[in-house]
Amino acid sequence: MAETENPVTRISDHSYNHLIFGYPLMELTGNITFGEATYLCLKGELPNEKELKMLEVLLTCGISGGGLGDAQVQTARCIATANRDDPIAAIGGAMLAYGSTTGSPAFTAQFVEDAYAFMKKEGLGKEDTAKRVVEDTRKQGKRVPGLGHRWYPTGDPRAIRIRECAELYGFVGEKTLLYDAISAEVSRVSRRPMPPNIDGAFAVAGLELGFSPLILGPLFALGLLPGNIAQVEEEIKEHESRSIRRFIDDRINWQYMGPSTRHLPKEKIKVPLVKVKLEE
Amino acid sequence: MAETENPVTRISDHSYNHLIFGYPLMELTGNITFGEATYLCLKGELPNEKELKMLEVLLTCGISGGGLGDAQVQTARCIATANRDDPIAAIGGAMLAYGSTTGSPAFTAQFVEDAYAFMKKEGLGKEDTAKRVVEDTRKQGKRVPGLGHRWYPTGDPRAIRIRECAELYGFVGEKTLLYDAISAEVSRVSRRPMPPNIDGAFAVAGLELGFSPLILGPLFALGLLPGNIAQVEEEIKEHESRSIRRFIDDRINWQYMGPSTRHLPKEKIKVPLVKVKLEE
Amino acid sequence: MAETENPVTRISDHSYNHLIFGYPLMELTGNITFGEATYLCLKGELPNEKELKMLEVLLTCGISGGGLGDAQVQTARCIATANRDDPIAAIGGAMLAYGSTTGSPAFTAQFVEDAYAFMKKEGLGKEDTAKRVVEDTRKQGKRVPGLGHRWYPTGDPRAIRIRECAELYGFVGEKTLLYDAISAEVSRVSRRPMPPNIDGAFAVAGLELGFSPLILGPLFALGLLPGNIAQVEEEIKEHESRSIRRFIDDRINWQYMGPSTRHLPKEKIKVPLVKVKLEE
Amino acid sequence: MAETENPVTRISDHSYNHLIFGYPLMELTGNITFGEATYLCLKGELPNEKELKMLEVLLTCGISGGGLGDAQVQTARCIATANRDDPIAAIGGAMLAYGSTTGSPAFTAQFVEDAYAFMKKEGLGKEDTAKRVVEDTRKQGKRVPGLGHRWYPTGDPRAIRIRECAELYGFVGEKTLLYDAISAEVSRVSRRPMPPNIDGAFAVAGLELGFSPLILGPLFALGLLPGNIAQVEEEIKEHESRSIRRFIDDRINWQYMGPSTRHLPKEKIKVPLVKVKLEE
Repeated sequence: MAETENPVTRISDHSYNHLIFGYPLMELTGNITFGEATYLCLKGELPNEKELKMLEVLLTCGISGGGLGDAQVQTARCIATANRDDPIAAIGGAMLAYGSTTGSPAFTAQFVEDAYAFMKKEGLGKEDTAKRVVEDTRKQGKRVPGLGHRWYPTGDPRAIRIRECAELYGFVGEKTLLYDAISAEVSRVSRRPMPPNIDGAFAVAGLELGFSPLILGPLFALGLLPGNIAQVEEEIKEHESRSIRRFIDDRINWQYMGPSTRHLPKEKIKVPLVKVKLEE
Repeated sequence: MAETENPVTRISDHSYNHLIFGYPLMELTGNITFGEATYLCLKGELPNEKELKMLEVLLTCGISGGGLGDAQVQTARCIATANRDDPIAAIGGAMLAYGSTTGSPAFTAQFVEDAYAFMKKEGLGKEDTAKRVVEDTRKQGKRVPGLGHRWYPTGDPRAIRIRECAELYGFVGEKTLLYDAISAEVSRVSRRPMPPNIDGAFAVAGLELGFSPLILGPLFALGLLPGNIAQVEEEIKEHESRSIRRFIDDRINWQYMGPSTRHLPKEKIKVPLVKVKLEE
Repeated sequence: MAETENPVTRISDHSYNHLIFGYPLMELTGNITFGEATYLCLKGELPNEKELKMLEVLLTCGISGGGLGDAQVQTARCIATANRDDPIAAIGGAMLAYGSTTGSPAFTAQFVEDAYAFMKKEGLGKEDTAKRVVEDTRKQGKRVPGLGHRWYPTGDPRAIRIRECAELYGFVGEKTLLYDAISAEVSRVSRRPMPPNIDGAFAVAGLELGFSPLILGPLFALGLLPGNIAQVEEEIKEHESRSIRRFIDDRINWQYMGPSTRHLPKEKIKVPLVKVKLEE
Repeated sequence: MAETENPVTRISDHSYNHLIFGYPLMELTGNITFGEATYLCLKGELPNEKELKMLEVLLTCGISGGGLGDAQVQTARCIATANRDDPIAAIGGAMLAYGSTTGSPAFTAQFVEDAYAFMKKEGLGKEDTAKRVVEDTRKQGKRVPGLGHRWYPTGDPRAIRIRECAELYGFVGEKTLLYDAISAEVSRVSRRPMPPNIDGAFAVAGLELGFSPLILGPLFALGLLPGNIAQVEEEIKEHESRSIRRFIDDRINWQYMGPSTRHLPKEKIKVPLVKVKLEE
């Protein structure tokens, strides 16, 4: 392994004093909040007051908001009902249920970053950029991420709340305005309002705070974590049955559409069933 | 870090030839089956014919048998519906849904190992050992793992099938017979038949094959993996909606029993809602 | 599925207003901090000032303190170097690296809860309880969790810091004092100082805050999450090589001690190597 | 939730007889091998002899071949050293360490599928298609996946072995030959041999077997699982220390390059350090 492939890290110095970006961990503990700690880890500096408040908005906009129907809560509950002995497994597993279908500010953020880079490179205005990227996206048979919500046709309240806080704290910048133009263009071509949903609003606010798209998925997941922990505790404590809970219920949830009963060819049956009887 | 703390490994030599317990990987590929490879990894030697057949029984006794209601399938589907972009996340997450409630041969195997060690140490017979460990377990308010199944009051067919194959291939040894005695004793004191279920039968067969209890959970999970992969493929391909699928459905699955609507104290509302209107 | 098996939840009402323990989510966003949100999710009520400050101490005592040598950071880096495309996988995987060896306040908390229940049931004093539980633990060949640290023989600074904050905010109660007595007893019988380490101090402070042992592992993990996210970002951005980074390095980390080269028996070689040549 | 959104499944019927694509599970157990079970789950039909042999080649080409330096083994070991209590966590976590950098037949398979669809649509020959897709890929600043290996400049033996078996069993079809042409074109433009590596050879053989690209990552992971289980067992049994093993070792592996020691501004220090002394 070549010398240059060794990892270097700017995050923490593993010595007695445990420096976190230069600050002794012990000096931080008891003097900063978890919100400040999060900002420090992700940006390398402590936040000013407005940066901190904006980050807290992002961290609290999704706390268990979707309840039992959330992808993450569903997953946490499914693991917890089986693996009651190690709650950390349910928490870790639930962290995996974020992607382009839900909990996906990363995808929108990358989309906006790319559109913004294109706008700068081409020297276009916001509206022209929006036209071009929306057209381009539709040509590829894709959709612009972060817009519209099935349950909130006139606007996701979480997105509206993020935006009103962003205005208050001064985090409506060029990327947000470009995304506004993109949202307007998508609304125009699809002939119905397509305002940002929670993913879209989180994504642009995250970019305005200076975060990289790649950490926005994990940051969103961080905000949902306390709710997931509560759900896992509830599942383990409340469900005393010896069997797992079956959330996917055949009364409403699914049906079998595979082949009907068939049997192995005779010559494959080397070990016939003796004590087990198949029902016919 | 002291020298003695460096890991040593007997499993594989990472060189051009990739030795697996001494065998060149390239000689194995194309000449052994995956069942043989599994045995080699877990025991350090290739299996004889009966050992291989018995291992194949264990690896095929649970293939997607529980369908959509399985803890693992539920989990895989919940992750896949959210994170369609990385199917490996759904597969990895589903691996976490094994524990003492389901998919748990490890717990039974450890129980039998302990009972067996106790029998040998005390020089007791099987029936006396069974009486003692069952009494002891009940005193601690616990239950003997691996016995009984809610859906199969007279016997889990998968357990019966494992046992009939174990008899055929010569894997009914002292640990199996001790567990039979324990099953009989539990049936006696609980006044209903408590035969081994799939976990119990898998556990003792795994011990007779010489596996350590700690690998029996992962080995069981290995057997369910192909079914889980199929479920993830089906979920990603068949569900075209832009939203996640909500498996936990409020029509039948749950209800909210928390506090009714309340509001933050006035002094806490520093940023009042302007554009968002709460429904009353 | 019986009616009584349906999950009930006190956490969140999945309606337009998204009640979190009764509070409209939109009223919380922008008006509470993430520390408050965490407390609300885990206790069902908002914290008073001292409860909040104490929780913030717990959430900030471990932020990336162990650096690259942490179990969680190691895991996150190992996954990120392979799976650069889905950072959420590295974050979810790192959540799994908490157990009785590290990051384990859950084990200590359960130990203290059991000792405390025993003390109350038997009507003993702290010192007598400590004697009894320490003796009992040693008889079982186990060790009392949460005491001592290889690198800090005279005291883990993170534990000392947690304690001095607990004194300041009024969270030194009976369980903490009982654990003090247990620590003194372990020190006496092992003839060297065995003060609480970060796990032990976190565990008793968590109990004094009224948290259940089963959520303390996940709560500890929550505190380490921002550091892990930073590590994953650094790993993905800094390591441009097309191959994975090999952290387990044979220059110092391991050696092969398995069988030397051997070959399959002739009759097993049905598909001889033609284009692949084994080195001798 | 609309009726049409209910999942349907063709995989398994969750009834007493547990049909797997129509076959009673109990008839399968004891009569088919795990390789056959895997094929059945993934294709819906039992394999013929050649299909089975080819699948076994894929499942055995990577068994613990990379040893301790593998991304998956590294991850499994890192989790196991921390979380000794739940080996399933280490196994599940290791499943996440597959991506475009390693263990990635899915990426190559998708690339080949797209190239093949382009060839058919445009009515081109293999060489012309190869020219076009390689040029296109390079223009986008990307590289063709699955070609070349740092350690095996003249050819990855695992890829060569997969190919010689594919020839023997009749699985060298149009997609394989197209990928050959692509490999030749990449070699030409990069002026060094760029033959398929294990990912590339696995990918095209998987396509020839009729598997969808999206399951090839999980299928590859399945083949590595037995080796990972063995590694986890070894880690848990052999490492008796009370502390975690630190695989990322500062003697060779990393260095801190962040800010040097700095302190919080005076006004931020509300809770000064009393019992904790920072080293200067």
